[in-house]
Amino acid sequence: MGLIYLDHLAATPLHPKVKEAMIGYINTVFGNPSSDHQVGQPAAEALERARGQVAALLNAADPKEVVFGSGGTESINHAIKGVAIGLREKGRHIITSNIEHKSLLNSLRTLRLLDYRVTSLDVDQYGMVDPGAVEQAITPETILISIMLANNEIGTIEPIAEIARIAQKHKVVMHTDAVAGAGIIPLDVQALGVNLLSLAANQFYGPPGAGALYIKKGTPVWPLLDGGPQENKRRAGTENMISIVGMGMAAEMARLEMSQRLVHLQALKDRLVQGLTQRIPDLKINGHPTHCLPHLFSVSVEYVEGESLMLMLDEEGVIVATRSACASGSLRASHVLIATGLGHALAQGTLVFTVGMDNTLADIDRVIEVMPRIVQTLREMSPIYKKGHTAS
Amino acid sequence: MGLIYLDHLAATPLHPKVKEAMIGYINTVFGNPSSDHQVGQPAAEALERARGQVAALLNAADPKEVVFGSGGTESINHAIKGVAIGLREKGRHIITSNIEHKSLLNSLRTLRLLDYRVTSLDVDQYGMVDPGAVEQAITPETILISIMLANNEIGTIEPIAEIARIAQKHKVVMHTDAVAGAGIIPLDVQALGVNLLSLAANQFYGPPGAGALYIKKGTPVWPLLDGGPQENKRRAGTENMISIVGMGMAAEMARLEMSQRLVHLQALKDRLVQGLTQRIPDLKINGHPTHCLPHLFSVSVEYVEGESLMLMLDEEGVIVATRSACASGSLRASHVLIATGLGHALAQGTLVFTVGMDNTLADIDRVIEVMPRIVQTLREMSPIYKKGHTAS
Repeated sequence: MGLIYLDHLAATPLHPKVKEAMIGYINTVFGNPSSDHQVGQPAAEALERARGQVAALLNAADPKEVVFGSGGTESINHAIKGVAIGLREKGRHIITSNIEHKSLLNSLRTLRLLDYRVTSLDVDQYGMVDPGAVEQAITPETILISIMLANNEIGTIEPIAEIARIAQKHKVVMHTDAVAGAGIIPLDVQALGVNLLSLAANQFYGPPGAGALYIKKGTPVWPLLDGGPQENKRRAGTENMISIVGMGMAAEMARLEMSQRLVHLQALKDRLVQGLTQRIPDLKINGHPTHCLPHLFSVSVEYVEGESLMLMLDEEGVIVATRSACASGSLRASHVLIATGLGHALAQGTLVFTVGMDNTLADIDRVIEVMPRIVQTLREMSPIYKKGHTAS
Repeated sequence: MGLIYLDHLAATPLHPKVKEAMIGYINTVFGNPSSDHQVGQPAAEALERARGQVAALLNAADPKEVVFGSGGTESINHAIKGVAIGLREKGRHIITSNIEHKSLLNSLRTLRLLDYRVTSLDVDQYGMVDPGAVEQAITPETILISIMLANNEIGTIEPIAEIARIAQKHKVVMHTDAVAGAGIIPLDVQALGVNLLSLAANQFYGPPGAGALYIKKGTPVWPLLDGGPQENKRRAGTENMISIVGMGMAAEMARLEMSQRLVHLQALKDRLVQGLTQRIPDLKINGHPTHCLPHLFSVSVEYVEGESLMLMLDEEGVIVATRSACASGSLRASHVLIATGLGHALAQGTLVFTVGMDNTLADIDRVIEVMPRIVQTLREMSPIYKKGHTAS
């Protein structure tokens, strides 16, 4: 029996068209797009084609607003540190939330060493940021507001357009980490009204190691990678053409297939949520019930260790994550779940399912069949569970 | 007639084994190496295999000292800014030279905004840094010395081992930008005695967008990309597995084939140098005559514009560079050539030839046949040339 892969947040398989584009490029082009001679030309054309494809996915006003880089982490580091340096004379205060990705939190940790000040806002039980709280936190020193578009652990979609309007009113630069949402749900940078938006190809059937930062014309962002004049002087370094070609094609396919993907993913998720909640008692569903990514389902299983649950599911060929892939390796409970008010014990028992286009309803039915059995086995080994359930 | 590609510094064609490894990976693996489940496992294994391959090329004591990133530019930014932040309490003075790559110069420009101080040393007519001058520049505030291993425009190889001994004596961290030399000439980080060394795969028949920073155990380097715990907490972000697999294979092939490559490249270069200097009057050869990269030949052609020369050679199917590829887009004369004492006019007439393993002696003979004719044509259109040569 084949594997049932439900960890599309950690990595998506490459779309067949993406594979084809990347292998085609590997076999035919090797020039440097910065070279003025004829060997550089096909590379330069491929680079601008990919830029147009990503710009179209985001509805950017100008393809030049798309700056390619090595992934979501670089894009976020670039936005945060780039604005911090670009606006250091204006002020050193940044506003964010308690549920952001580690690449944002740790970028801010570095900036604190360089005398920047950060306000990190609380979220509600669903992981929602309150736009009113953002507005209250703004001071004359505030140079940047960064709130994620969709959370990568619980799926909650934040009110970015509303927050961006507040930022605009106070003339503060607005960044959103859209890594978990871009290519999955429709995004329009102009409608959102953000200055900066981060995305990564490996979330939407493109390769790992390719990402982009949308930089609205006129936004003061210093480069993170200093050097040559590549990417319209926004990001130095010879371009990773093979990955960029893959990202461009992934963006185009995401745009063309988005509506059918949304229907398929939501159907898979709904079946999974319904099946598991009906068959497993003492489950806590994380994230907002409606303002939520269509392919992500985070659930905390009481009296169970997420790591054990993941490994036993793995043995049955069901592949899930216990926490954000980027955070694995850390043994601490997820800061996102703690921020929503979940206790440490329950947070440790959390699984994150992310379904993908290659999954079928039969896959989901298999998970619904296998998982209740495993949970039961694990609970029967848990002293806390037995105590509670013998007493009742 | 096929193209004669002599711009291997801008981009190298992929080694057939590199193509094979990358395409094989694209077709069979997609997992995230950070995932604990079985889909992540093959990616994690491929990552460590590539790390071992690069460590072997450099003779690193421990593969963990190799940190993958998105290329030479990132590696250099990481070294410079990472030490600057890591040692900010110790001091804010950095020593470098006037002929470094833009990624280093512009990283230092950013650090100056954050109150760091830089001493940039002069070089001699061959582009050589004087180790004695390095020692004299050291102050109690000095935290980093960064001198390139081999210059990417004139090919001069610097006395890095000697400078590293001085750095060690004064307990200052030593970095070398080895992008233009790694994979071309034998390198041994332990024999060199450096703490940090930057390299990029696209210089030795690997893909663009893949590089590494060698970080000797114990060197205080802050991450440039903050976020998750990837790369032993040295560089956050989901790894670009396809590029890394290509870089690993490129490193292995460079190590295995190095001695035969050296012989072939040096033979091509010698023939080119001899042929052109015999047939074209008023040439100035740049860089050190013996301490020089075996595949790079920089020559300034008096009374001629390098751009025109390059374009006319391009029409004849001969592909060369007028300056470092990363610097093209800038119209200013090369800072490297100016630092060696070359006048602006002569600097503008400079071509950089970099030969590769796919070139043949017949290719070189064709260049020797074509180029004198083109130079003559261009000179006959030059008023300065005509004036000088009518008067004589």
